[in-house]
Amino acid sequence: MVNASQLVERLRDDKRALPRLMTLVENEDPFALQMLDALFPLTGRAHVVGITGSPGTGKSSLIASLVDRIRISGRPVAVLAIDPSSPVSGGAVLGDRIRMLARFADSGVYVRSMASRGRQGGLAWATAELVHLLDAAGFPLILVETVGTGQDGTDIAVLADSVVVVQSPGLGDGVQAIKAGILEIGDVVVVNKSDQPGADQMVRLLRNSFGLGQSSSNRAVPVLASNALSGEGVDSVLAAIDAHCDWLDQNGDRAVRRERGARAEVLSGLRTSLERRLAQRPESSPALTNAIARVTRREMTPRRAVEMLTAPLTGSNVS
Amino acid sequence: MVNASQLVERLRDDKRALPRLMTLVENEDPFALQMLDALFPLTGRAHVVGITGSPGTGKSSLIASLVDRIRISGRPVAVLAIDPSSPVSGGAVLGDRIRMLARFADSGVYVRSMASRGRQGGLAWATAELVHLLDAAGFPLILVETVGTGQDGTDIAVLADSVVVVQSPGLGDGVQAIKAGILEIGDVVVVNKSDQPGADQMVRLLRNSFGLGQSSSNRAVPVLASNALSGEGVDSVLAAIDAHCDWLDQNGDRAVRRERGARAEVLSGLRTSLERRLAQRPESSPALTNAIARVTRREMTPRRAVEMLTAPLTGSNVS
Repeated sequence: MVNASQLVERLRDDKRALPRLMTLVENEDPFALQMLDALFPLTGRAHVVGITGSPGTGKSSLIASLVDRIRISGRPVAVLAIDPSSPVSGGAVLGDRIRMLARFADSGVYVRSMASRGRQGGLAWATAELVHLLDAAGFPLILVETVGTGQDGTDIAVLADSVVVVQSPGLGDGVQAIKAGILEIGDVVVVNKSDQPGADQMVRLLRNSFGLGQSSSNRAVPVLASNALSGEGVDSVLAAIDAHCDWLDQNGDRAVRRERGARAEVLSGLRTSLERRLAQRPESSPALTNAIARVTRREMTPRRAVEMLTAPLTGSNVS
Repeated sequence: MVNASQLVERLRDDKRALPRLMTLVENEDPFALQMLDALFPLTGRAHVVGITGSPGTGKSSLIASLVDRIRISGRPVAVLAIDPSSPVSGGAVLGDRIRMLARFADSGVYVRSMASRGRQGGLAWATAELVHLLDAAGFPLILVETVGTGQDGTDIAVLADSVVVVQSPGLGDGVQAIKAGILEIGDVVVVNKSDQPGADQMVRLLRNSFGLGQSSSNRAVPVLASNALSGEGVDSVLAAIDAHCDWLDQNGDRAVRRERGARAEVLSGLRTSLERRLAQRPESSPALTNAIARVTRREMTPRRAVEMLTAPLTGSNVS
């Protein structure tokens, strides 16, 4: 068994240790996964904030601006960005990259991006595991940037303690967002690019729609305007995130979310595991090979074979 | 344990017994599934023919015409039609229904349609189980009508001993079919509506494409023209199906297909089973509930929980 506290010390002392371990975990290296096993009991301390929104809403700029403010207060922060593998629009994002790069010299900030392309269904899994690593490494605040909600059942909404939904005027009128249901997952809603036409109207519309009881909890969801490039309103966004963090602790909602997150992670892992199994040759599993042989010999129906193979999931007894 | 031979006798003597049992199996009635368990060792005798093609190719008319000819030779035949739940075009299909209805008086023909709508992923499963029932009930020939290839991994190509791909001129130029890859699954290719313009050209194109080694086995795939409404060419289609049946037995390919079918049915069943499990409340599985609780308490990573729950599939030991 790997010693967890020694490992954490190593992650803090050696700047290259964390990125290296994260890469190994992303690649599902067996030894790195054992390290994660050792570190897992140390997790659950960080406040995990999902920041989600369509491309073009200025999400990355908002994150860069939030990181600046978080560092002013002295708190360490980690950013995990899930690269949508699509050609991102030039200027602003490049500017953010440079700002982020300037932060690399700051040991209180750790920025990591993850490729989403070429994965065999394991994106949700990998995202969660990297968040666990950052959590164990001692970052009290972890920002996870994603594009929209996940397609595979587990999205940032179930992984995060707080979800910030970023909107901007000009990308639809807010009604689209309401229809798409992405606002329902938001604990904080931000209308970014507040200098653009239609921003005020969008804020009003969204405030009204939350007034109609769109929030999943009984908490009032703040709808805030920000301009990530000028920095206007970003302090309020950070304050709203911190307020939601406090609210979770005061209302016992954090435990509920953690349980929901564990559930989502196990269920999504089951799906990933099965999809991989189905993509492989059955020969890689002796039990599966044996079941198929019995079905081929007509000794057992396919349904009974499936019941046998999934017995631990169904909790039924197998003769 | 249900007595299989008594059950088969019952299915043959009481005309209502087979439809009733099929409905119960479709609804996954536990007692009916036990009957299927008892009957399963008697399956594997029928020749199962998948007849697939886009709507509008005259697939149903071709099947009606094939059934006429099969009955002339005195052989019993069952037809399982998977209703795509879409409003089917009027005349021809209605005509076929009437022809089929006329056959209801004939105890050597059994026609059944299955709804594909409203199923929770279990279509492939249900199709296969109804085919097993028809097989056990003693039909030596079973025609399964489907629209195109399946979306969920198991399609008629892996369930059937022979696959007839039906094309018709005017629904694209055959190049589409080649691109879509549906010809690759065909053991017999039929260009129906041979009286329509472009039919001869389509037959030539398809024959050439098979000449380029498109066939999955080393067998020459016959490309035939038919006119299901006039009956022209339908005898040749039936002869080609019978020839493929003989070829399978002579070349040992039937055993290969049966093993492939068993594999596909088990893998598709695993997928269906998991999807249903994920759609349910985890509380329905004590093992799953327990795993989630352990993850929530940070005693075990989600990955290890998944490994534990899927242990029989991976064949690994669990401590």
